[in-house]
Amino acid sequence: MNTCGIVVEYNPFHNGHYYHLQQSKKQTKSDVMIAVMSGNFLQRGEPAIISKWKRAEMALYSGVDLVVELPYVFAVAPAPIFAKGSISLLAALGANTLCFGSESGSIDLFYHTLEQLNTKGAQYDQFLQTFLKQGQSFPKAASNAAQALHIKNGVDLTLPNNILGMEYVKAIQKDHPLIQAQTILRKGASYHETNLEADPIASATAIRTTIAKEGALTDRVLATMPPSSAAVLQQEWEKNHIMTWDALYPALRYKLLSTDESAIAALYEVEEGLEHRLKKAALQCDTFTDFMTHIKTKRYTWTRLQRMCLHILHNLAREQAKQWMVNGPAYVRILGMSSKGQEHLRRIKKAIPLPLVTTVSKCDHEMLAFEQQTAAVYHNANDPNHASELIKAEYSTPPLQREKA
Amino acid sequence: MNTCGIVVEYNPFHNGHYYHLQQSKKQTKSDVMIAVMSGNFLQRGEPAIISKWKRAEMALYSGVDLVVELPYVFAVAPAPIFAKGSISLLAALGANTLCFGSESGSIDLFYHTLEQLNTKGAQYDQFLQTFLKQGQSFPKAASNAAQALHIKNGVDLTLPNNILGMEYVKAIQKDHPLIQAQTILRKGASYHETNLEADPIASATAIRTTIAKEGALTDRVLATMPPSSAAVLQQEWEKNHIMTWDALYPALRYKLLSTDESAIAALYEVEEGLEHRLKKAALQCDTFTDFMTHIKTKRYTWTRLQRMCLHILHNLAREQAKQWMVNGPAYVRILGMSSKGQEHLRRIKKAIPLPLVTTVSKCDHEMLAFEQQTAAVYHNANDPNHASELIKAEYSTPPLQREKA
Repeated sequence: MNTCGIVVEYNPFHNGHYYHLQQSKKQTKSDVMIAVMSGNFLQRGEPAIISKWKRAEMALYSGVDLVVELPYVFAVAPAPIFAKGSISLLAALGANTLCFGSESGSIDLFYHTLEQLNTKGAQYDQFLQTFLKQGQSFPKAASNAAQALHIKNGVDLTLPNNILGMEYVKAIQKDHPLIQAQTILRKGASYHETNLEADPIASATAIRTTIAKEGALTDRVLATMPPSSAAVLQQEWEKNHIMTWDALYPALRYKLLSTDESAIAALYEVEEGLEHRLKKAALQCDTFTDFMTHIKTKRYTWTRLQRMCLHILHNLAREQAKQWMVNGPAYVRILGMSSKGQEHLRRIKKAIPLPLVTTVSKCDHEMLAFEQQTAAVYHNANDPNHASELIKAEYSTPPLQREKA
Repeated sequence: MNTCGIVVEYNPFHNGHYYHLQQSKKQTKSDVMIAVMSGNFLQRGEPAIISKWKRAEMALYSGVDLVVELPYVFAVAPAPIFAKGSISLLAALGANTLCFGSESGSIDLFYHTLEQLNTKGAQYDQFLQTFLKQGQSFPKAASNAAQALHIKNGVDLTLPNNILGMEYVKAIQKDHPLIQAQTILRKGASYHETNLEADPIASATAIRTTIAKEGALTDRVLATMPPSSAAVLQQEWEKNHIMTWDALYPALRYKLLSTDESAIAALYEVEEGLEHRLKKAALQCDTFTDFMTHIKTKRYTWTRLQRMCLHILHNLAREQAKQWMVNGPAYVRILGMSSKGQEHLRRIKKAIPLPLVTTVSKCDHEMLAFEQQTAAVYHNANDPNHASELIKAEYSTPPLQREKA
């Protein structure tokens, strides 16, 4: 019985995701597909375009057997933490393999590169420190340090999916060596591509950007997704539930306006006097983009700052976040399952080393209570007039159950 | 040279206010009229319908010579604190008389009642405790205790303006005995009246209620105000700057959703486990009225709870509020002045025992920094797309200067 794990955001689910899902299944010869999926907030420090429930629905329709929520502190985090949380959940759920998409497409190259990085660790650190001192952001310095090592036949660590893949491989090697890593060459548009090409495989970024730009859900956009996903997105569009940072900004701004600098400085990822810039920008900027432009410096990436903004919004204290990250996910929360996924769960239930959460009747875990809090903030910004219903559903919705089409 | 002080909210300025202003001037034979006015948040725990600047403008147009801001902690407070702050500012500005409107209309009755209350203090306290133990709200218990003393020919302390007037008289007797208290019989609609009668003197409540109900600024409403006030209100209406709790509720709700119960419990006026009710109501209620209905109990008045909601919104810690209230206003902030007011200021400048603030270039006083913060929160909720301009104006606007019509 092969169980394959994948790590996803599905923001929203599109043809590229479908391709990856099918290829992973084929390549790993798996009977069960488990997806660890971010909740309502994502790695780039953004709210998900539609809620986790709707994205889980898309995943189930397209053949995922089990959708598990990656808790906020791991989902809205740099690659190493993101990978640590994801792999630990997949391990808890008995995945034999992890299959990730990459620009490289060769798992051997990943292991080769990792070996080199491990043996040249001291040298790598030296390069890294040098680049950081030059004022480079962390991801840029890390990528440059890796390049400076002149690893022959290595993975190109300037490419986003390779970077993430490398962190998965590291996490597996360190904590869960029984999981076998595999990778699939990404097809179609690059992760950062913002234009919707004629290609039926577009990036999720291009899809979101196009929706925002056109202010409509055109056939061109819908053609980049499996029909089942397109239907879900369309329903959410009609409910006016398409979420962006713009909808969150009034709350973030209010938070900054009403909070002392010292209290802001105690929040996660607010470093080195950023609280002054933040307060000032909140006074001066009427849009989120303007706000971001005001706080941006060469030292921090846009993504890093957006994640910080989410942590501020969610009032996440530095100490709390660090403690949770060190401990790893405190529970396994099932968002959705097929009958096959349900069977798998039944089979491994007793072996799961973490509490299994299906319906959140009460929050026994602080980490879960925090997750619920972030969801409430999401709904309050997304649809204030119906937030109570949406929040209530967060507590009463059992895992979605769906037979595959 | 007679200087008369009045304490006002002007929410908005109407014919009744005009009548009170003219009568006060006449009765006290004053050359200079000083109004201590609440800023953007009011005693009943509500945002002002239009900003302090616009209300100061109305006051100047109608003959006030000096408009001084009552800092938030005194403005959004029970009658004794409200009176303490107001009287202390009027004393600082050299007012010889205070002239307040009341349902009684006789200052002798106030002094007579106060004397009785003072001599029967122990008895009064006993009644008060009894009524509080019966679960009555504080204002109700206080009013019942006063009634139970059977003061002959006393002021009716069940009426709102009499209650406030009594607190002015107490504050004067205690701290500023050189000020002479006078009162004017209120004319026209009662304070609590919510219907707009044919009478050209309506209550401010009736005016606000009618605007909200009709969703328009009708001639009937405008007829209750001097033409200069009506013009200002109309301008604000056209800018969509008519403010209500509904516009603040998303921020309050966000604050409650994203804050731990223990942190909420540390805020001013959140007492006896109210934090649980507050969190629960934030999850369940999509409108402010529904929210208030959910948290209301017999023990607290609607007003008291609304004030608490504002303190939560402004993140005002209990200890901070108490310290500020004990110390009294930390500065005198001028919002507007006529040439006569300016002259008066020049004359008494050296004798003012508090720092005089005209333009807020920087906030040297914590209390003033807090005031600016509350204004920023007001603008962010009232007009998010132009909040930066409005906030900037809070720091750069010099006192309004206006010749009387």
